[in-house]
Amino acid sequence: MAGLSGDKVDERSRYSGLLTDLYELTMAAAYFELNLTANATFELFVRSLPPERGFLVAAGLEQALDYLEHVHFDEAEVEYLRRQAPFQQIEGGFFEYLKRFRFTGEVWAVAEGTLIFGEEPLLRITAPIIEAQIVETFLLSTLSFETMVASKAARVVSAARGRSVVEFGSRRAHGPEAGVLAARAAYIGGATGTSNAEAGRRFHIPILGTQAHSFVMAYPDEEDAFRKFQELFPEHSVLLVDTYNTLAAIDKIIDSRLHPVAIRLDSGDLVALSLEARRRLNRAGLKDTEIFASGDLDEYVIADLLARGAPIDAFGVGTALATSKDAPALGAVYKLVEIEAHGASAYRAKFSDEKITHPGRKQVYRFHDENGNFRGDIIACAEEQFPDGEPILRCVMREGKRREAAPDLGMIQRHAHEQIERLGKGCRRLTKPDAYRVTFSERLEALLRLVRQTVRAPREKAKPGQVA
Amino acid sequence: MAGLSGDKVDERSRYSGLLTDLYELTMAAAYFELNLTANATFELFVRSLPPERGFLVAAGLEQALDYLEHVHFDEAEVEYLRRQAPFQQIEGGFFEYLKRFRFTGEVWAVAEGTLIFGEEPLLRITAPIIEAQIVETFLLSTLSFETMVASKAARVVSAARGRSVVEFGSRRAHGPEAGVLAARAAYIGGATGTSNAEAGRRFHIPILGTQAHSFVMAYPDEEDAFRKFQELFPEHSVLLVDTYNTLAAIDKIIDSRLHPVAIRLDSGDLVALSLEARRRLNRAGLKDTEIFASGDLDEYVIADLLARGAPIDAFGVGTALATSKDAPALGAVYKLVEIEAHGASAYRAKFSDEKITHPGRKQVYRFHDENGNFRGDIIACAEEQFPDGEPILRCVMREGKRREAAPDLGMIQRHAHEQIERLGKGCRRLTKPDAYRVTFSERLEALLRLVRQTVRAPREKAKPGQVA
Repeated sequence: MAGLSGDKVDERSRYSGLLTDLYELTMAAAYFELNLTANATFELFVRSLPPERGFLVAAGLEQALDYLEHVHFDEAEVEYLRRQAPFQQIEGGFFEYLKRFRFTGEVWAVAEGTLIFGEEPLLRITAPIIEAQIVETFLLSTLSFETMVASKAARVVSAARGRSVVEFGSRRAHGPEAGVLAARAAYIGGATGTSNAEAGRRFHIPILGTQAHSFVMAYPDEEDAFRKFQELFPEHSVLLVDTYNTLAAIDKIIDSRLHPVAIRLDSGDLVALSLEARRRLNRAGLKDTEIFASGDLDEYVIADLLARGAPIDAFGVGTALATSKDAPALGAVYKLVEIEAHGASAYRAKFSDEKITHPGRKQVYRFHDENGNFRGDIIACAEEQFPDGEPILRCVMREGKRREAAPDLGMIQRHAHEQIERLGKGCRRLTKPDAYRVTFSERLEALLRLVRQTVRAPREKAKPGQVA
Repeated sequence: MAGLSGDKVDERSRYSGLLTDLYELTMAAAYFELNLTANATFELFVRSLPPERGFLVAAGLEQALDYLEHVHFDEAEVEYLRRQAPFQQIEGGFFEYLKRFRFTGEVWAVAEGTLIFGEEPLLRITAPIIEAQIVETFLLSTLSFETMVASKAARVVSAARGRSVVEFGSRRAHGPEAGVLAARAAYIGGATGTSNAEAGRRFHIPILGTQAHSFVMAYPDEEDAFRKFQELFPEHSVLLVDTYNTLAAIDKIIDSRLHPVAIRLDSGDLVALSLEARRRLNRAGLKDTEIFASGDLDEYVIADLLARGAPIDAFGVGTALATSKDAPALGAVYKLVEIEAHGASAYRAKFSDEKITHPGRKQVYRFHDENGNFRGDIIACAEEQFPDGEPILRCVMREGKRREAAPDLGMIQRHAHEQIERLGKGCRRLTKPDAYRVTFSERLEALLRLVRQTVRAPREKAKPGQVA
């Protein structure tokens, strides 16, 4: 029965090749049996931004590259697969191959913190098709989740207009590990820190916290709970005042001559309560005691609170950040755009009814005005040159090895911040943002037409878009 | 720099005590310093169900208990905490305590697969307050995530009216580990299986898959791709027909005399396409070739497809299942309800403006009619007796050890299915479901009034609700 509860000892699964959809593995078996060892190029992108999103902040590359460097199948994993029904006709060679499996490909990607838009590849992989296929699921989930949360965080931080935003969402994240990754992504998007201690340890993110209702309730007297916390954490005493009655609790703090770093409001009318709290604190000489607010906040609530004059100094944001609640999935895709075979390279494109994918390896060129602000992007064939444009995809991995160490997370956060500052204000609006200008290059459009024509005539057995 | 990318070797973090919010740890330090070693009781529940949800399917208990049995802090984790700013005034004894930290408490919980409703505790913990506090964040995220996905799956499965639903959402899950847990939860809620290979291995869930557009595109000719896949996987050939042109692809299958297990439609008008596909397949004698549909499906789309007569045999559901897209957070809470001190037990209740928590340890009694169907629940004090009611919280852990092995996941799935069958049809409606009848017992309401009165008069230093 032990296996049913998840292997307790087996902690290896972080880099398991099984962290993928079964069809990647059956297709891998088919490629192997048919001796299809060609290099394939896949691109990972978001077709269109979720509602109300004017931009995305790329994140998750670090976890993606870490996985690509370490992904493998251990003996037990391979044996598990071999026993599964679909693999009954597959011979031993494939399973021996899996035991030796490593990712050996090349990766181009936009740096974490870089802004991206619909249709723009975040990542492009060229590798033997089996390798590129097996890693698809991991890459999609990691990059789209972190990008989604970093993008949401940028909105929340923007709404807070310079006030601190702390990521508090671990308890609402999609499992404990999602909480850790959400904390990282929120930090990239501009959060000051996180409540998640493991994220702090693993990624060197500032960790921050206040106190819970249970702490106040653990003492017979609310005042007692405040005093004891204040004594122990004089520099970090954020006292939670809404357990019984918010204003009465503030009066207790004042009457007891406590001097907390901040009070935390977690329910009720935050505008009225923060105004009255500020008035009472100031009157008592506690002008430097800050007001921290939490409780189902998001960018809209924060913008509204500040527009209505709430004197709140910092925000704790949970569910909205850790789950990107209004847009909890990005819909990223991972599409084959080119395959090398028989010494030739053939472009690939998909054009079923609604979903067209442009063929070939791409680069995104970003154009700036004289002040460095972004004017628009062109998605082009990788080999095209635009001397005025900045290519945003860089080669980050060759032959399965990273080309450089990971940047400091603080640098990534600053990079994101600078990027956002360079984006037009209209594209940064919280509601109905302007669409940032992204076009395909003429050459790329021509290539799409070419591949489309050749595949439209499949009965003639044309080799689609094959070039020398 | 290595630490910035996450520790590559350190795989211990699955059971780390750091998988929590910082404030749990600062509060723990405060309890330790103040020698507050009392047993506390916390209950975990969802205050109200998300929109359109008539019931929840409890899930995630297995991961919660596994964590409680193994949670600890290693040396490096403790040293990390000791270096953090808030802990500067905390003496060494607390850190020595953390190194020895284990969960030693008692846990009552509803079995996985059991239906629960708003305000009903899924889990109740009694433990020294530090222990109960530190595990809060992990328990909330694990139980609410899996419960949310299992509940969503139950809706999707119900909409499919007996047809198979396969969980396909790993690529849209909130990171790779969330994908594995989502697969488990979806299976509990009634999914036939998952595409997630690691979930298959770890939890013995049936794994299922089809083929991707990239497989079709990897071959110069679509027909070739179909034929090769069919040869290798004769019993598992689900051929994806929408890469270029859906009906043309079906004609190719027929003309080539292939006999796939199923075809998969992934885009376009699924009603029209499935009707025409069925007609062409039947005419060609492929009556047993099933039609599998996917592509941004959820319970509403599936119900609509079937209502409009689409002859679809099975559904692959991704984003909607793995993220519970329309309700991606449950808003579960973990509230202190009782604390033992000085040989007495004091009830605790929170009653800030909107959020009232009933005090004391609770049991939920479920009442059935003569056919075994659910009539309603009473949330009562734990020591109350209702001979006609079935108590749904069971003691699952004592002194930090599980009382029984984990049930088979298939049994949990069957339990969930039987429970759902016993719920009134009105409560199972996909939209505007009837509210299931849940009331608090008279004794519990009286206890709330009592505690409220004593805490309303805090100036008199009353010991709230203290009993002998």
